[in-house]
Formats: sequence, structure tokens, C-alpha cells
Amino acid sequence: MSVADFYKGRRVMITGGLGFIGSNLARHLVDLGADILLVDSLIPDYGGNLFNISGIEARVRVNVADVRQASTMNYLVRDREVIFNLAGQVSHIDSMRDPHTDLDINCRSQLTLLEACRHHNPEAKVVYASTRQIYGKPEFLPVTEQHLVRPTDVNGINKAAGEYYHLVYNNVFGVRATALRLTNVYGPRQLMKHNRQGFIAWFIRLALQDQEIQVFGDGSQVRDFVYVDDVVSAFLEAGRCEACDGEAFNVGGDEHLAHRDLVKVLIELAGTGRYRFVEWPPEKKAIDIGSFYADSSRFMRASGWTPRVSFREGLTRTLAFYRQHMAHYVEPSAASAGG
Amino acid sequence: MSVADFYKGRRVMITGGLGFIGSNLARHLVDLGADILLVDSLIPDYGGNLFNISGIEARVRVNVADVRQASTMNYLVRDREVIFNLAGQVSHIDSMRDPHTDLDINCRSQLTLLEACRHHNPEAKVVYASTRQIYGKPEFLPVTEQHLVRPTDVNGINKAAGEYYHLVYNNVFGVRATALRLTNVYGPRQLMKHNRQGFIAWFIRLALQDQEIQVFGDGSQVRDFVYVDDVVSAFLEAGRCEACDGEAFNVGGDEHLAHRDLVKVLIELAGTGRYRFVEWPPEKKAIDIGSFYADSSRFMRASGWTPRVSFREGLTRTLAFYRQHMAHYVEPSAASAGG
Repeated sequence: MSVADFYKGRRVMITGGLGFIGSNLARHLVDLGADILLVDSLIPDYGGNLFNISGIEARVRVNVADVRQASTMNYLVRDREVIFNLAGQVSHIDSMRDPHTDLDINCRSQLTLLEACRHHNPEAKVVYASTRQIYGKPEFLPVTEQHLVRPTDVNGINKAAGEYYHLVYNNVFGVRATALRLTNVYGPRQLMKHNRQGFIAWFIRLALQDQEIQVFGDGSQVRDFVYVDDVVSAFLEAGRCEACDGEAFNVGGDEHLAHRDLVKVLIELAGTGRYRFVEWPPEKKAIDIGSFYADSSRFMRASGWTPRVSFREGLTRTLAFYRQHMAHYVEPSAASAGG
Repeated sequence: MSVADFYKGRRVMITGGLGFIGSNLARHLVDLGADILLVDSLIPDYGGNLFNISGIEARVRVNVADVRQASTMNYLVRDREVIFNLAGQVSHIDSMRDPHTDLDINCRSQLTLLEACRHHNPEAKVVYASTRQIYGKPEFLPVTEQHLVRPTDVNGINKAAGEYYHLVYNNVFGVRATALRLTNVYGPRQLMKHNRQGFIAWFIRLALQDQEIQVFGDGSQVRDFVYVDDVVSAFLEAGRCEACDGEAFNVGGDEHLAHRDLVKVLIELAGTGRYRFVEWPPEKKAIDIGSFYADSSRFMRASGWTPRVSFREGLTRTLAFYRQHMAHYVEPSAASAGG
């Protein structure tokens, strides 16, 4: 069965459905004719943004709710066939300032969702958004799933626990689940109102606003980047992949480059912005992982997925999106300062 | 400096201090002349037992408190030089029935203790009782610290997170911490009032009460066993070992044997009891890890520790202890039924 056939009329739920990846996933699922429930807390500092579903509002159902709320989740999971579980606290820095909130969102709420499935919808298939952050500082490159999990911050620990819960519920309670360990995802609809949720969207904002981008250290740290449409297709494949049940996979891009080279490409494509090397801020240096890029071949073999959008192409599309819509992604005052 | 010199007058705290390992540790520290604060919740179903400090009551300070209580922990950690962090929910089965309570005790409370140290006593050295359960079903034997963490139950996941927190707080906030991944610990003062906290104490109780021991499957699953006095010396070494800061180590025994052989030795030494092979209960089979024994050589090299008590010797001492004191470890009715 093709992806299109599989999702046509399929009852899906997306936690974090108004966020960056969730809303892009929703847009694809609308095209495929799925029955879509988006659950999002719309906590102001997080990535949920109603503008992200602009144009598809009539074809999705939005339920504002916090995944920490057990009784609500017990109700919402009923009848959903595939649950894309993307809600999370994603800031590494915030997790070190307020570890208990990160615990509640990234551990407790995952248990809450899985308990909801166990008791109220054990037939559901769950696809969990994990992260390369769980590996910590790599001992070898590219990082495979055989690399030890050694997170460097509380967020990475809690995301690891959230992932493990999914695999245990798959193995013990038969709630089918797959975890995707995402590397650096970029593209339209990513949060850029502050710089505590990864650096790409923030750099894009600065470039488009013709401001200075600060590159930490000598900018030699390497990352792999994966365009959001490719991540969306990874979730769609995982949601229908039986061989993926009970497994955690790397999902990254097949291009990797140093921060300084990323910034050069970005400024070239944007036609605006500039950069400067600066000292590492101590609180960021303490949890930095150095260079990282993932080997995603295990997921490609299991699911047939492959990334298709080159970094230059993805960045070009992303810049075009934000040139048109940046006002919806920055605070009003900041947008005018940059525009 | 010797262990004795290091701990003489040293201000230590033991969470779970009235439990199995905690109270044996307290007894050794009393002999060494340490200034000892025992913190224990005395939750009825858990391992805390005031009889465990019988004879040393006047030489320790007991503070009944729950490690989940942040304000209490903020107060109690002040001025403590070494914190042996042993409080935990240890039942795998309970963690699958009530995962949120396991999360609260094994994740949230660890963050609470570490936050207390970070903000109120950053000079403390913390030694955390982790578990071999975090490895899940071994891919190779003996299991080294290079083995992937793939827990088979919620308890294993939360214990892994608890361990990772300690290492991150060591690396990021300078709260020195070491984690010991304990294998099957046995000896005097272990809980035996129910069978949900590991099987050794339960088997010992049945043997001494001349009852039937049920061995699951064919009893071929192998474990390594470590006597509690050896575990106590591992904690004492870790507490003073600078090379151990920021590290997690296996701590197991150098003898391993199959369940069925363990039971035969036990019945021989006890002179009472019998055994029978039975089918695996499904809820236990679902989280079973097969055979497991650990390679502890990395900790031996780092700290100089070595296990000294043979399994027969340890079991003989344990049986002698419970022959004398079983009434304090079982419910009154059950004790009379067996005695």
C-alpha cells in the first residue's frame, strides 16, 4: 500500500500539532486526505503557532490541551489509529535552568500518553520524535544507533527516557511504537521568536533582518541538516512501517557542514546578514557536543525512506517562506526592527 | 588516605538510609566514626525498617522524609560532605503497574536532590545507586559499561535517567557524582515481606520457612551475586574516589550461577526448603532479561575495590542473620506460619 493509500481517511493525531514539524506533517496529511486531530498546548514560549495551519484550518480539528493532562489525553487518544507524538520541551538551555518542567513535559507526559494508549487505545501506532541529543558528545562519526546514549544535558536525558518508554510499551504492552532520533531539522514554520530552540531558525532570522550572526568558537563544529519535508516523510513512513515497531532510528540529512560554512551559504542565499566569531558562552559550552552527524541508513533500509531535498534547495525554500511570513514568527517590535 | 581516615568525622548522608544497603552502609560508617544522617520515607511497602539500625540508633541521626520533597531536601543536604543516594522504588513489576510513582521517586526526586546540592551544597560528593537493569537484555556477556542502555521496564528507564542526571550535574554544575550499577545484591537486612523486590531474599525466606521455591522456566538464567558488605565497600571507595567523578561503573560479584544452582546451594545451606520448576508468569516474562552478569573490572581499576565475600560464605552469613531476626522482616502472621 502506498503512503497515499495508507493515510487516506486514516484517523491520526499529532501532539505538538501546531508546532514546526507537527504543522508541516499536518499539511501533508491534509493533502493525503487523513482525518486529522491536532493537539497543542500553545504555551507562549514554545513552538505552537496558529499561523502554521493557515489555509488548512477547515480540514483539521484543533484541540488545545497540555499533554501532561492525563484525563484529557485519555479522551483524545480514543479512535486515533496513528499518533505522531511530537509535543515536547526542546530547549537544552531551559532544561538546565528548570529541569523539573522539562521532566514533566518530556518524561511524565510521555508516560501519560502511553498509559492513555495502553488503557484506552492499545491498537494505536505511535511515532515519537526523539533527538540526536540523547547521544551526547559523539565517540565516533557518523553516529549509528550502536553509539552509547550519554546525554550532556537534562533535556537529552528526559528525551532518552521518553524514547525508552515508547519501546517498552511496544514490547510489554503491545502499543506499537517507533522512535525517530532527529538531527538538525530546518524549514518553514520553525520557532524564531527567541534563540533557545536550536540555532538554524535564529540564524535565518538574523540573516533576513540583515543583522550579525554570532558563530561560537571557530565555527568548526559540524552538523547534518534535514529539511522538514524529509522529516515529514520519515514520520509518514514510520507510521505505516511494521518492521519499525519497537525500534529507534536515526533520521538525519545526507549533507553535513560546519557552522561557519552553513552561515556563509545562508548569507549568500539570503543576500543579507553578516557574521562574526565570538567566544563560547559558558552555559552553552558546558553542554555542547562538538561535531555531530548521523548515519540514517538503518531507517532507510527498514522503511524505504530517503531524504530528497538538498541543503541549498531547502534553505532557499525556507528563506522564501520567511521573507513572506516573518511577521508571524517574531514579536511585532522585533519584526519591524528587522524589516 | 585510608577509607578509615577519610570517613572519620566525615559528615555523610544516606538517602534510603533505613533500607537494605543504606543501613548496612550506616553500620560500617558508624564503625569508621562518621557523622551520619539517615533519610528515609519509611513507606510501608518499601525497604526502610527501623530494626535495620538496631544497636546503632544512638550513633546515627534519623530524619524521616521523602526525597520527593524539595524544601526538605534543600535543608537536609546542607553541610553534608558525602551523600550516598540510595532511596528508590526498586520493584520492576510495580513500575509497570504504576509508572508515574516510579517516575516521581526515581526521576523527579533525583533531580530534586541534585538541585538541592547545586543550589545549597555544591561541594557535596554524591554516590548514586544505579542498577544493571538499565542494560536490559544483554547482547553480550559479561556486560561492560560499553553495552547499550536498553531497559526492558519503566523502572530501568527511570533509573537510567536518574543516573544520567548525576553525570550531567557532575559535568555541568560541578556537583561531583559517581553512579554504581549494582547487580544482584543480597545479605542481611533486605526486604522479604513481599516478593516484588528481587528474588533472592524471597527465596531465602521460603527456604528458611521450609516452603516450596518456584523457579521460573528451567532455571537456566544466570546472574551474578554480590554480598552487601562488598557493595558497602564499593560505596565507601566511590565516595572518596576522585577518578570516579562523572563516571558510571558496574559493581557485581565475581561469581555467577544459574537460578536453579542458586536454589540448590540455598536449600543445602539452609537445610530446609524445596523447589519446583514452574511456567513463567506472563507479566514477569515480558520484562525478563535472560542471563546477566557484569564485568566490574573498570571500577576495580579506578577505585581499587574488589569483592571479598564468596557466595557460599555470604549466603551462610545471611541465613544466620535471618534465622535470628526473621520476625522483624516478615508480617507477624507470615512469620508464625513459616517458623
